[in-house]
Amino acid sequence: MSKFWSNAVKRSNPYIPGEQVNNPEIIKLNRNENPYPPSPLVLKAIKKEVGQSLRLYPSPTVDTLREEIANLYDLGKENVFIGNGSDEVLAFSFMAFFEPGQAIRYPDISYSFYPVYAKLFDIPVEEIPLQDDFSIKPSDYYDSEGGVIFPNPNAPTSLYLNLAGIEEILRHNQDRIVIVDEAYIDFAEESAVGLLKKYDNLLVIQTMSKSRALAGLRLGFALGSPELIEGLVRIKDSFNSYTIDRLAIAGGVAAIKDKAYFTEKKEKVIATRSWVTEELEKRGFTVLPSQTNFLFVTHPEKDAARLYEQLKENLILVRYFNKPEIANFIRITIGTDEEMKTFFHVLNRLENF
Amino acid sequence: MSKFWSNAVKRSNPYIPGEQVNNPEIIKLNRNENPYPPSPLVLKAIKKEVGQSLRLYPSPTVDTLREEIANLYDLGKENVFIGNGSDEVLAFSFMAFFEPGQAIRYPDISYSFYPVYAKLFDIPVEEIPLQDDFSIKPSDYYDSEGGVIFPNPNAPTSLYLNLAGIEEILRHNQDRIVIVDEAYIDFAEESAVGLLKKYDNLLVIQTMSKSRALAGLRLGFALGSPELIEGLVRIKDSFNSYTIDRLAIAGGVAAIKDKAYFTEKKEKVIATRSWVTEELEKRGFTVLPSQTNFLFVTHPEKDAARLYEQLKENLILVRYFNKPEIANFIRITIGTDEEMKTFFHVLNRLENF
Repeated sequence: MSKFWSNAVKRSNPYIPGEQVNNPEIIKLNRNENPYPPSPLVLKAIKKEVGQSLRLYPSPTVDTLREEIANLYDLGKENVFIGNGSDEVLAFSFMAFFEPGQAIRYPDISYSFYPVYAKLFDIPVEEIPLQDDFSIKPSDYYDSEGGVIFPNPNAPTSLYLNLAGIEEILRHNQDRIVIVDEAYIDFAEESAVGLLKKYDNLLVIQTMSKSRALAGLRLGFALGSPELIEGLVRIKDSFNSYTIDRLAIAGGVAAIKDKAYFTEKKEKVIATRSWVTEELEKRGFTVLPSQTNFLFVTHPEKDAARLYEQLKENLILVRYFNKPEIANFIRITIGTDEEMKTFFHVLNRLENF
Repeated sequence: MSKFWSNAVKRSNPYIPGEQVNNPEIIKLNRNENPYPPSPLVLKAIKKEVGQSLRLYPSPTVDTLREEIANLYDLGKENVFIGNGSDEVLAFSFMAFFEPGQAIRYPDISYSFYPVYAKLFDIPVEEIPLQDDFSIKPSDYYDSEGGVIFPNPNAPTSLYLNLAGIEEILRHNQDRIVIVDEAYIDFAEESAVGLLKKYDNLLVIQTMSKSRALAGLRLGFALGSPELIEGLVRIKDSFNSYTIDRLAIAGGVAAIKDKAYFTEKKEKVIATRSWVTEELEKRGFTVLPSQTNFLFVTHPEKDAARLYEQLKENLILVRYFNKPEIANFIRITIGTDEEMKTFFHVLNRLENF
């Protein structure tokens, strides 16, 4: 504690990211990163941009990338906001659409950055318990005071809420913003983007970190009405004119353009998810029906914390959340087929499955 | 205006960056970019990083770059904070060290982003007039209510305040943070970094955009006591865990390492500044004694706004500020010798100098 800290620092409760380890022998199934590299066209586009022009400021409006994303979803450029990772987009959204003193709602088991933002910006929260099957009950989110935010699919549960449910939440919050945080949507049924035409209180947030394998480049985006996007732009232009560097812009454009590569790798992850789920179930695990690139699993006879430790000792890193409601679950990121075979090799040996 | 906007959006008054033009024929002397490319070692280091690893999150603590910068200034890693451009560092600093309701002081002619941050974060301001010669008078900043911030050298005036003056301001604000924004310091006499040992209320902010020719990569940093750096880290980790992408980290480390290239190009800019100053003075301009990579100039017989327009019609872009106190000044970024020769070629023809 320092006498120079503002109240914002004093009340803050910073987010702690998943463990970082430098041992190249470790199989990292703990941060929901994509096991496949970015598209070769992305690497090519970035390399082309590495030169003289780095001395010049990038575009403050990032129009090339906005247009590419707009085309992808049949929207206009004015419906798209780009941020330095979806965490930055979320932070700007909290500033732009939530108000200190007005309580927002989100699921109690959810992305653990939401309470961090709320602390920073002094926004009261109502953490709504999930149902017993870990699903979100739409009516719990009706008539919020300050707005609603939830991931879809949810993390770390991996569960998807269908569009009918989302529509219910939107209809019962017409004067408040509902943010649907779609970090994992490309591994799921359908985005809520189609609802933008009908609901002006909807903001959809996505990232290029997961399905487009660009966690290291920092690109996220929001989709919404021109008024909402203008709100985000006003916050961003009051904060940092140039949030997206030249290399990220070039890489992002190429990543959206290469639809074939994106689809191939996404389907590969989904196929791996499918056999890994089966194999876990064969060994007595309960696996929540995942629509993400990770699995949220528990075993009736095994202690999750211990399993996490045992796997770690064997150079396999998964994620364990020390939170009462999910204390007997671990979250396993879907790796390559080879990595998942090694995972089972270790698991079998550990537990005599 | 949208009913969904927060009060922060409503009260915001976003920053407007210098004009962006895509015409490659235009000589851009309007954004204080470095006329020379980044070090070849920077480009090499970035290219090496363009690959597989982009699928992985970058380091949230950016230790490699922090250590490199710490070594440069004979500090520890715990004295260094890295941001996505110095504008982001400034934004986090406003959140970490200034308090809504407590008035901060800065010069009325200064970096025009300060009032933008103040609006966003609801911090009252006392804009202190510069002296008649555009210099900062230290005693004007004594005993501030909420803290002090100023660029040194100042922009757009290009004038440097010596360390004795800065020390006076620090000594008379011992319970408040004084931020010295050293975006242009590498073109000037001496950084205030040396004062960190003596004053725990000092935060120094620098950027790699100007002297290291990396405006397109977005890297800035703050130097201060471990407590102040911890305050910034807490804000950042409540906002966005991974603000610096993998390519920027690689490029930043290489940029700090290549001291020879840095010194060579910096000295080249200073040499060009010297002859350009002389040539302007020969033509009757008053040129403030610059310690930056730009000149702030006025002419007793010429209208600055008109000169700006005429230069623009001739494909030379400089910066004009439509502000009463400096309405007869233009700001000219130092380009290459060749660019500055073209500038004079155009100027001579325009005004029959």
